[in-house]
Amino acid sequence: MKRYEKFADEIADLIRTGVLAPGEKVPSVRHASRTYGVSPSTVFQAYYLLEDRGLIHARPRSGYFVREHAQSPLHEPEISSRQAQTTEVDVSELVFSVLGSLKDPNTVPFGSAFPSPHLFPLARLARSMAQSIRHMSPHEVISDMTGGNPNLLRQLALRYMVSGVMLSPDELVITSGAMEALNLCLQAVTSPGDLVAIEAPAFYATLQVLERLKLKAVEIPVHPREGIDLDTLADSLARLPIKACWCMSSLQNPLGASMSEEKKRALYALIQRHQVPLIEDDVYAELYFGTQPPKSVKSFDRDGLVMHCSSFSKSLAPGYRVGWVAGGRYAEQISRLKLMTTISPSVPAQAALADYLQHGGYDRHLRKLRHALEAQQGSMLASAARHFPASTRVTHPTGGYFLWFEFPEQVDSLKLFQLALAQGISLAPGPIFSATRRFGNCARLNYGHPWDAQSEQAMAVLGQIIGSF
Amino acid sequence: MKRYEKFADEIADLIRTGVLAPGEKVPSVRHASRTYGVSPSTVFQAYYLLEDRGLIHARPRSGYFVREHAQSPLHEPEISSRQAQTTEVDVSELVFSVLGSLKDPNTVPFGSAFPSPHLFPLARLARSMAQSIRHMSPHEVISDMTGGNPNLLRQLALRYMVSGVMLSPDELVITSGAMEALNLCLQAVTSPGDLVAIEAPAFYATLQVLERLKLKAVEIPVHPREGIDLDTLADSLARLPIKACWCMSSLQNPLGASMSEEKKRALYALIQRHQVPLIEDDVYAELYFGTQPPKSVKSFDRDGLVMHCSSFSKSLAPGYRVGWVAGGRYAEQISRLKLMTTISPSVPAQAALADYLQHGGYDRHLRKLRHALEAQQGSMLASAARHFPASTRVTHPTGGYFLWFEFPEQVDSLKLFQLALAQGISLAPGPIFSATRRFGNCARLNYGHPWDAQSEQAMAVLGQIIGSF
Repeated sequence: MKRYEKFADEIADLIRTGVLAPGEKVPSVRHASRTYGVSPSTVFQAYYLLEDRGLIHARPRSGYFVREHAQSPLHEPEISSRQAQTTEVDVSELVFSVLGSLKDPNTVPFGSAFPSPHLFPLARLARSMAQSIRHMSPHEVISDMTGGNPNLLRQLALRYMVSGVMLSPDELVITSGAMEALNLCLQAVTSPGDLVAIEAPAFYATLQVLERLKLKAVEIPVHPREGIDLDTLADSLARLPIKACWCMSSLQNPLGASMSEEKKRALYALIQRHQVPLIEDDVYAELYFGTQPPKSVKSFDRDGLVMHCSSFSKSLAPGYRVGWVAGGRYAEQISRLKLMTTISPSVPAQAALADYLQHGGYDRHLRKLRHALEAQQGSMLASAARHFPASTRVTHPTGGYFLWFEFPEQVDSLKLFQLALAQGISLAPGPIFSATRRFGNCARLNYGHPWDAQSEQAMAVLGQIIGSF
Repeated sequence: MKRYEKFADEIADLIRTGVLAPGEKVPSVRHASRTYGVSPSTVFQAYYLLEDRGLIHARPRSGYFVREHAQSPLHEPEISSRQAQTTEVDVSELVFSVLGSLKDPNTVPFGSAFPSPHLFPLARLARSMAQSIRHMSPHEVISDMTGGNPNLLRQLALRYMVSGVMLSPDELVITSGAMEALNLCLQAVTSPGDLVAIEAPAFYATLQVLERLKLKAVEIPVHPREGIDLDTLADSLARLPIKACWCMSSLQNPLGASMSEEKKRALYALIQRHQVPLIEDDVYAELYFGTQPPKSVKSFDRDGLVMHCSSFSKSLAPGYRVGWVAGGRYAEQISRLKLMTTISPSVPAQAALADYLQHGGYDRHLRKLRHALEAQQGSMLASAARHFPASTRVTHPTGGYFLWFEFPEQVDSLKLFQLALAQGISLAPGPIFSATRRFGNCARLNYGHPWDAQSEQAMAVLGQIIGSF
């Protein structure tokens, strides 16, 4: 063990034992160097390592601070495998049995895919809805169906522009949520039997859509912090006739991984070299905890190869079912498929969102939402540290509302799911995130609901069940 | 020519020349028998024939009256062919080029698929939307996505009950318009390459959906008044491995044909014998002109073989994108496909419709709407009689908002479409309604917009173009 690693471990222990509390400043480099008799460069290296482990974070011109959830003694999971796996997909039954269990409103919703609706400005949205629908001309009710609400298209293009992506509203197709967008993108570029590169673990709906469209999955492993493994993807693209890649480049579901900007650029270069379209599912992008919004792979797209899908369901208006895709060279094809499938998302819902984006204070709401989610993440991580076995591993995502737990080998997460449900607690077991039903000792837990005594109690119960395996 | 046929023609002439005006009572049987020296039974037979031709209609205990549009000298088209045709479908490009032409709001919208939005209670709906969304609990915003709005489900089941169809709300799946419902139904019961029996002419979206899902169409001819040809269908079902039937049993698009109750019962017996599921597209059912609502094939369904699809888009709330399917034995499968495709239609739109159905006066609105459409049909038929060649044939549908014209042989309706568009008039040319691009001298015209001088002028221009072929 190198000197800086030893020093980093010492600081980590101070954090874990609560000597250095969450939010507290860690000693400055100068102070630490003098006090502990190590070189400033050793301190620097140690702090970089701790930052990398998610225990501390830098604030510009203020130094390093202990992160809110840093007292978690749980390590991050390793990347699961370095090999791509090709397989037919047959996971839907399992997913539906899990989803069916979430219907009971009295269940603690750790298994849910949605954050708490209380985090959203529903009353303000209702006002936007009432106002916009009162002022809607009869003509618009019909015309907004084929082309989408023009004001919403403008607002979306504006937000893309601010994030560094220049696109014409023509490239945007408004859809019935991101789920429809993803379905249409995949249909636009594949035929039954084709191979599609996806993540492992992947959002279970990805697997269901592949199954429905009779596509084969090439599972590419995802690093819990750095995202999809590019070497494996490059190898698969070279060896196999892959027709499309589908990935979440930021705050990946379920791991929360975000690729670095450099890595996103490399991913784009890779798909450009192979001229394989990329479906970029970016629905969590607005839920980052840092100061800088993550860039999308779309922002590097020169060839129109990237279909960038998102929605308002996770960040503003669940239930409104309005999403979109910036479809690049596939935009017209996607738009036609949409006209053949659902024609249009609800016109009043589009108008309400356009009004809200213009007048409702979306960015203010997002800042509040991000803070709430970051605090809740800290609470769940701390609670997991208290109640779960020490050998449990957990992700430290920099946004979103999911944690991915890797329990000790002997834990069967499907059994865990059943036992927990019997006690009124839901969770999303690992195997629903894999076409090959891997991740049998893993689970995704949702921290998107305000943390309270019931949450804490539920974590304690889960800890007991996990310990009983 | 029989005596009663000759007598019928004489009365028809009186109507056409305006001697007997629309709305006027025709001579009573006793009076006619005495005045014209024919037997009462000859008069009876003649009046039945005139009724059959759509020139007069009976009012209970009042006798026969001239129909509003009876001065139309145009005959009805014949059934096009008695043979089923099996074919790959490849009509989408043509359909999109026609639809694209409808975007200009200054075009006379005879080619549109929608009635005028001015015919709908948009302000009252807006009130229902504002009210229901204000009172919606945050929990409902999430829970209504998976299961549908419970009040809307109840209202729908109630309307089914009143129409004689008993079903549990469990059998109902709320969808993003009828278009999504039809897509999901077809996916639930077919795989790529399968044969599906459809109508000829058929709603063009039917053809597009088959094309998208790589299904093959078995085209069954439709009689312009009596609907699908059951003998041909029976023969096709006996000879071919047909996986599903898809038809509009009432007010078929584009012909406006409605099957008799007896024929619907026979259709059900047929599919039951072959155990082939029926997708019943019933979106125009509420737009009947008579006093009795048409029954659905679903009302005879004992085996859960019928998937009955409808929506509010044609009768109440275009642009809200809320439809549904009573899915019979396929309901759960359809519901799962929906969760994988769009998850849910807009939750606020569902709530608004539930509130409107309960408090808005839907049946009162429907009565008004039916009267408006019937009057507009009369206006278009009368105008066609004035401006189109006498050998033109036209349907006399008992509801909806489409007329189907069969022009003289030499008229190429795709050319007609281009020439009319250049003069600011849209129409839906016959070939987009057929997988085999038949109906080259036919067109569908929409009378769903209030009739005015511009409409009349547009018919005159169309007449000139038609005459120039």
